[in-house]
Amino acid sequence: MSLSLGEIAVRFGCELRGDPDREIQRVGTLANAAADAITFLANPGYRPQLADTRAGAVLLSADDAGDCPVAALVCADPYVTYARVATELCPPATPEPGTSAQATVDPTAVVPTTASVGPGARIGPGVFLGEHVAVGPNCVLEAGCRVGDGTRLVANVTLCHGVVLGERCLLHPGAVIGADGFGIARTPEGWIKVPQLGSVRIGNDVEIGANSCVDRGAIEDTVIGDDVRIDNLVQIAHNVRIGDHTALAAMVGIAGSTEVGKRCLFGGASGAVGHVKIADDVVLGGRCMVTSDIRKPGMYGSAMPHDEIGVYKRNVARYRQLDRLARRLRQVEKALGIGRKGSD
Amino acid sequence: MSLSLGEIAVRFGCELRGDPDREIQRVGTLANAAADAITFLANPGYRPQLADTRAGAVLLSADDAGDCPVAALVCADPYVTYARVATELCPPATPEPGTSAQATVDPTAVVPTTASVGPGARIGPGVFLGEHVAVGPNCVLEAGCRVGDGTRLVANVTLCHGVVLGERCLLHPGAVIGADGFGIARTPEGWIKVPQLGSVRIGNDVEIGANSCVDRGAIEDTVIGDDVRIDNLVQIAHNVRIGDHTALAAMVGIAGSTEVGKRCLFGGASGAVGHVKIADDVVLGGRCMVTSDIRKPGMYGSAMPHDEIGVYKRNVARYRQLDRLARRLRQVEKALGIGRKGSD
Amino acid sequence: MSLSLGEIAVRFGCELRGDPDREIQRVGTLANAAADAITFLANPGYRPQLADTRAGAVLLSADDAGDCPVAALVCADPYVTYARVATELCPPATPEPGTSAQATVDPTAVVPTTASVGPGARIGPGVFLGEHVAVGPNCVLEAGCRVGDGTRLVANVTLCHGVVLGERCLLHPGAVIGADGFGIARTPEGWIKVPQLGSVRIGNDVEIGANSCVDRGAIEDTVIGDDVRIDNLVQIAHNVRIGDHTALAAMVGIAGSTEVGKRCLFGGASGAVGHVKIADDVVLGGRCMVTSDIRKPGMYGSAMPHDEIGVYKRNVARYRQLDRLARRLRQVEKALGIGRKGSD
Repeated sequence: MSLSLGEIAVRFGCELRGDPDREIQRVGTLANAAADAITFLANPGYRPQLADTRAGAVLLSADDAGDCPVAALVCADPYVTYARVATELCPPATPEPGTSAQATVDPTAVVPTTASVGPGARIGPGVFLGEHVAVGPNCVLEAGCRVGDGTRLVANVTLCHGVVLGERCLLHPGAVIGADGFGIARTPEGWIKVPQLGSVRIGNDVEIGANSCVDRGAIEDTVIGDDVRIDNLVQIAHNVRIGDHTALAAMVGIAGSTEVGKRCLFGGASGAVGHVKIADDVVLGGRCMVTSDIRKPGMYGSAMPHDEIGVYKRNVARYRQLDRLARRLRQVEKALGIGRKGSD
Repeated sequence: MSLSLGEIAVRFGCELRGDPDREIQRVGTLANAAADAITFLANPGYRPQLADTRAGAVLLSADDAGDCPVAALVCADPYVTYARVATELCPPATPEPGTSAQATVDPTAVVPTTASVGPGARIGPGVFLGEHVAVGPNCVLEAGCRVGDGTRLVANVTLCHGVVLGERCLLHPGAVIGADGFGIARTPEGWIKVPQLGSVRIGNDVEIGANSCVDRGAIEDTVIGDDVRIDNLVQIAHNVRIGDHTALAAMVGIAGSTEVGKRCLFGGASGAVGHVKIADDVVLGGRCMVTSDIRKPGMYGSAMPHDEIGVYKRNVARYRQLDRLARRLRQVEKALGIGRKGSD
Repeated sequence: MSLSLGEIAVRFGCELRGDPDREIQRVGTLANAAADAITFLANPGYRPQLADTRAGAVLLSADDAGDCPVAALVCADPYVTYARVATELCPPATPEPGTSAQATVDPTAVVPTTASVGPGARIGPGVFLGEHVAVGPNCVLEAGCRVGDGTRLVANVTLCHGVVLGERCLLHPGAVIGADGFGIARTPEGWIKVPQLGSVRIGNDVEIGANSCVDRGAIEDTVIGDDVRIDNLVQIAHNVRIGDHTALAAMVGIAGSTEVGKRCLFGGASGAVGHVKIADDVVLGGRCMVTSDIRKPGMYGSAMPHDEIGVYKRNVARYRQLDRLARRLRQVEKALGIGRKGSD
């Protein structure tokens, strides 16, 4: 695939400052792109690399365009435009339709001729695959799963019984959807398993990262909205509900029955305890732990940043005496006759 | 399956306040259960939903029964009783006995006729499966594994060589039991791998969540007791020992050679460093990090809860100067002639 | 395999204090080794067990040798020497060469006769396997992957298209290499996927733990150096670069484009935000979160250790008011006329 700068400008709504006939074959980074590649500048941290770029063209904002040593494609959101151009230049490979002779497909499953079922895929009874669905090698779909049009399971993905996936979803290797939620009830003799009788419903345009888990509900379903983006090694417990357009970075963990709003952004390894509600448009910093309802949109944090080990150890030691330290301060204030009442 | 309220009361030891002939077909939530469904009230957070429930019956405690607008089944522990009733109403599907033609079974493996071996399962030399064992699609059992009666490996589970599982265990998709422990020895030229020559022994009635890992021991075995319940994405390192009836929520990590007692509860993403001992009946809050022996039963915590980003940043900045702040307080105390000696 | 103490002393450079003809068949722990087993003493925590050992011989340092009740093999680094002796006594099983009839190998793939391809392995178009490569049961290698001589994929490993592995690597079950990086661009209508067009290049002698993930780069490659050792459930995001000889314990997470130096040691569940640089020879304590560049070798920490729940709750409450507490201290200092300017 090849696009001229003129075509790119017209199709993606950029203002071109450069030769419209130059052909672009690929993408590259500011630092290393060659003359047949397009790149972009979005993160200001990479601004210093602009002056030396040898890219064929740079997607950038009007503010940065003046300093561009090569052809500039000025646009409102260079990262979004880059994503669109890159998708056009390098479209994702689509698996060939057809069912591998090494796959196992239950006779009661519905597999349209436009679907692709790879070797080692195991399609259980009553499974329904939509048009152009791709089930990669060694995926397992237990009984009764439904997979919407255009959804792709890359490889080694497991859908437990009755899971419902929307359209145009992308599930990366090792993802497990619909395993039992962690429901156990304590008796004097030990644990009793609480049957997990709900399922998982996943909307359209959802991406789920490698080795991530979304558990089935205990009674009702676990629900992931439309356009939710989930990175690797994420845990979504039973009966969690996640609103549309929310994105969860790697290693996020959300405990049971918690509801997450729309358009939230969860930083890496952040998460929430169970049974809380998180409003729309909440942003969690990396490793932030949500322990109660968040009703107000905005940013939240809780994790401690690194320090040199000596500083770290001294501060930790002080922290562990913090309550005592605060009481000592109150004594000092009392001795001086200052400080608000009740502030100890 | 259907049960009358009278049968439920008799079989599960409840006091029925309602029509003994009403038939129950399914389970539901307080909020959404229909007239043919049974529900329960255990978490006081859901108490407000009781007044409006339209369930066929509610399992609840004597204290709550007075306010129940529908048939009440009074019992000592509604959650436990719910688990029992739900298991009766909705028993887990048992895979059909028999070995799939798409499975690979080494001729030296023992697979009883009551066992179920799904398509794509790979059963290595010398493997021994007990009665009614179910090995789901695409599971891999390396040489010499032993799986006790009634244990089920759902799908895509890997048992590395020589792993021993007890009876009635349930391993969810993607679980990996018996991968090498992380043993490496440093030399001036780089790392040398330390052979991991132990195995993993898992007791009876153990549940292991999706994509969780239990590593094999370095010399002796990693040991998981009876009735241990492990959620998703949990890491159990080499030579860890976990006592009976302990439950580990998702994303828990336990480093090498640590010993965890009986009946412990580890909150989500909590964990322990290596080579420590944790007593029986210890409860860890979410994300709690255990860094030394815990000898006393009880609850422990260490993780910071979320705050709005401004509050968070200010407190973090202060925290990183906490040692200095404590010294300043000591100076103040000295100036005032107060404070205990040695408290700086 | 059996080795006499004399042979061990000569081949592994130890000073033997004991009978050179004693035969050693296996390894054991200080506490439990029998007379035909060798053990070692490296961690001083196990020193008290030396007096009672009934091992055939103990690898230990000169300082400890005097108290050894059985044959002593004195060496500079007992753990390294143990690793070498154990590898000799118990060499890893090498899978039989040959391709299983239940594997799927694309006709364009190169599979040498010395390679082993297990049942259910799926080898895509253009894949190149080196000599003595072992691809275990149910592994998936998408198109164009290259695997260096002597590398082993244990089972259920996924290599996405175009991934390059070096020689003598060991990938444990469930590892996923080359899944898409988490690249998404926000628009008013929702997320757009940013194509992940780079790949993953992994050096020689790299070990990757069970269910760990290394994502492919967005434009250029994600790069793992030589002799990097990665434990279970680790997340390496797109375009991360990891220097030679670095070791990452379980549950480490490294966000996108971060560069980690050589010979670093990351404790369990530690990690780094994206776009930072970490120098050579940096050691992170367990759960340490790196939030900015680290330019100086040495140890770093950030995680809070456990406390009893009452202490924990009181300290957390104080912590959340820490900024106010610091301001109160400043008021006290002002009232007393002490403290440095600007220290509030």
